[in-house]
Amino acid sequence: MTKADLLKLIQQHKTYLSIGLDSDLEKIPGHLKSKVDPQFYFNKGIVDLTNDVCVAYKINTAFYEAQGNKGWRSLEKTAGYIREKYPEHLLIADAKRGDIGNTARMYAETFFSRLNFDAVTLSPYMGKDSIEPFLEYKDKWTILLGLTSNSGATDFQMLETTKNNRYLFEEVIETASKWGTPENMMFVAGATQTGYLQKIRDIVPDHFLLVPGVGAQGGNLEEISRIGLTSEGGLLVNASRSIIFSDNSKNFDVAARDQAIKLNRQMERLLTEKKVT
Amino acid sequence: MTKADLLKLIQQHKTYLSIGLDSDLEKIPGHLKSKVDPQFYFNKGIVDLTNDVCVAYKINTAFYEAQGNKGWRSLEKTAGYIREKYPEHLLIADAKRGDIGNTARMYAETFFSRLNFDAVTLSPYMGKDSIEPFLEYKDKWTILLGLTSNSGATDFQMLETTKNNRYLFEEVIETASKWGTPENMMFVAGATQTGYLQKIRDIVPDHFLLVPGVGAQGGNLEEISRIGLTSEGGLLVNASRSIIFSDNSKNFDVAARDQAIKLNRQMERLLTEKKVT
Repeated sequence: MTKADLLKLIQQHKTYLSIGLDSDLEKIPGHLKSKVDPQFYFNKGIVDLTNDVCVAYKINTAFYEAQGNKGWRSLEKTAGYIREKYPEHLLIADAKRGDIGNTARMYAETFFSRLNFDAVTLSPYMGKDSIEPFLEYKDKWTILLGLTSNSGATDFQMLETTKNNRYLFEEVIETASKWGTPENMMFVAGATQTGYLQKIRDIVPDHFLLVPGVGAQGGNLEEISRIGLTSEGGLLVNASRSIIFSDNSKNFDVAARDQAIKLNRQMERLLTEKKVT
Repeated sequence: MTKADLLKLIQQHKTYLSIGLDSDLEKIPGHLKSKVDPQFYFNKGIVDLTNDVCVAYKINTAFYEAQGNKGWRSLEKTAGYIREKYPEHLLIADAKRGDIGNTARMYAETFFSRLNFDAVTLSPYMGKDSIEPFLEYKDKWTILLGLTSNSGATDFQMLETTKNNRYLFEEVIETASKWGTPENMMFVAGATQTGYLQKIRDIVPDHFLLVPGVGAQGGNLEEISRIGLTSEGGLLVNASRSIIFSDNSKNFDVAARDQAIKLNRQMERLLTEKKVT
């Protein structure tokens, strides 16, 4: 998917919502647990009722790996289903991988070729050669952790470095932005840190930012959007638990749709304000 | 496995060698490819002929994930086989994961409870709450990336921070060492950077270090060992490709054993010099 495709998708659906399929087996509605593949059926339910009210699905691999090879089959089935039924959506593997070139190539092959994801999240700690193999794929996206939304973000991401006397996450974003382009790289920018979002936007004015942490983690959609949105879109806001687990009954999918629509009312207005329509 | 158990294992086998099962399906001997599960049979061959000449097996998850749910089954079968036949060996999941608390808990559950690994490698970028869930498991090990052996290590790990005017990797190691103890944490210390190994040893005199990059990546075993070894062992040196892919014939397992023995001759002497016997 190109940057222009993603902008068009945002304009069509009037939203920049990404829905996180953090489909923890323990938390999905009881009536699905007797199915052969509960995680897949849960995801199918969510996706079938939300595809017109979001532009991206983010699959966090941890919640599938926890179920071993069965979980991987659920992940593969989910990715395959979205790819086939809703091919226009941005499909993100939230894997936060990061390993040496040799191994990075294996991961890139897995997520981009075999599973046909559009994007994968990566950790920057191991540097350029751990990221490059992903950037070689045409029309695929590397989403690098910049500033995360958890409390531990202050431990290292917010250490000041002597290079330009600024935070590590600023150094990471500026340095890494030169490895790729705004056409194949995005950055994770934690929503609970809106004070720093402007710094990030200043460093990478043309890159898409993926902001997690709206909803269960309590980010402020209004503030994030005013800083993050650009005339080319430039922003994806992800919500996971607050959408997919908003109702534990047989109506979980309808409830998820309602939650998405609620966010979209705000998003549509903000898109209009920024003239992204 | 406790630190004392690991020391005993090193003393018994007179080696601190970890063998990395980076069992890339493309690289394993041709005669195994007709088997139902080539990766497992390859690993079984290596493990059956090397268990008395090493103390640890490190399974890099990337090489299994690349084969999807089949690959995960190979990984599970390999881990299960080692657990059952050679329960005294340290079994490391080289996963380099790192995610927020919620997700970190899922990963910890996967690797420590479900797959019964002794240790898992993690990336420090997301800070304390991404690591803590792993530290709650008794007699299990978190192996945190400190300084890695790839060229990209210079990009961020070697940025100087203003906190103590030293490299990020030093800050990471010192800070993270306080989250756990030498009984449940180790650090990855890249072998190609022996000049910095002494700095790491000074910061964490009592922690085990896992040094990859001997062999295919060209680290210097002699120098690494003189710095890394302590009276309590304190060092695991990993070799992957240089051992497991040293011969592509039906004798791949015998050849792997020979390569391990070659390293062990040096290791036994170095253990004696450091009086770890």
